Amino acid sequence: MSYFEKFLKTNQAYADLHGTAHLPQKPKTHVAIVTCMDSRLHVAHALGLALGDAHILRNAGGRVTDDTIRSLVISEQQLGTREIVVLHHTDCGMQGLSNDAFADQLARDLGVSVHGKDFLPFSDVEESVREDVQKLRESPLIPDDIVISGAVYDVDTGRISEVTL
Amino acid sequence: MSYFEKFLKTNQAYADLHGTAHLPQKPKTHVAIVTCMDSRLHVAHALGLALGDAHILRNAGGRVTDDTIRSLVISEQQLGTREIVVLHHTDCGMQGLSNDAFADQLARDLGVSVHGKDFLPFSDVEESVREDVQKLRESPLIPDDIVISGAVYDVDTGRISEVTL
Repeated sequence: MSYFEKFLKTNQAYADLHGTAHLPQKPKTHVAIVTCMDSRLHVAHALGLALGDAHILRNAGGRVTDDTIRSLVISEQQLGTREIVVLHHTDCGMQGLSNDAFADQLARDLGVSVHGKDFLPFSDVEESVREDVQKLRESPLIPDDIVISGAVYDVDTGRISEVTL
Repeated sequence: MSYFEKFLKTNQAYADLHGTAHLPQKPKTHVAIVTCMDSRLHVAHALGLALGDAHILRNAGGRVTDDTIRSLVISEQQLGTREIVVLHHTDCGMQGLSNDAFADQLARDLGVSVHGKDFLPFSDVEESVREDVQKLRESPLIPDDIVISGAVYDVDTGRISEVTL
């Protein structure tokens, strides 16, 4: 049995408790969180979000990419968000990764050459938050009046600390 | 007070209950979920995930983009996942969006021209799941033995239905 089939079974119990209720498309807090795909971060729990509260964007590292900007433009201009939180975390798989060594590994294991591709690793987690906030501030697609904060989640303690920008 | 400050306060209570525990970087179920940023979907709840169980990737629509592939390659080749679930949902902000009309709106509201850019809207939610699964299957960076499933989450009932691929 694939995990997908197990998830479907668990979801039946979730849906039974969920009942039927229509919440609006636009997030109640007008916030979009940009964070990592890491399995040890459950964003709704860690931030106290209810269903319908905030957009949650996740990729490897919680990095700001073209796709993040695409999503944030939809989030803001189409769905009314006005605040962004960039949330990276300790013990990230992207921390200390080497693009060259990873490309070598992919050439060996998958027979695919991606040399020259930036997988967006970083060395310092507070620096990566600042870098990504800067990318948002420089984008002409993110208006200047959008409130942007940065923070780091500690995967061992569950605690979030603000990053001075 | 920004919502970020409110989240920080709520997180203090979360962290107090969390205690200190180190979970491994590699997700326990070896699954990566690709889904939408929508505020009405709390992935961990809806699928019954515990902390440490699965990678969660989210963008506008839950679409498979270059950034999704970047993240999945890290997820699989660096962090050991072997199964992908593409999960789109009902009442999505990307459903029925027109690239041209949205570009007109951005030109008007932000003074930025993005005509010709594909924001990845879709018209049929099951079709968009199939399209994104196909993109994954065609990528040389996603090995053929990765198990891929597709599903749709109903934001009104919380119920997930499998999509026949």
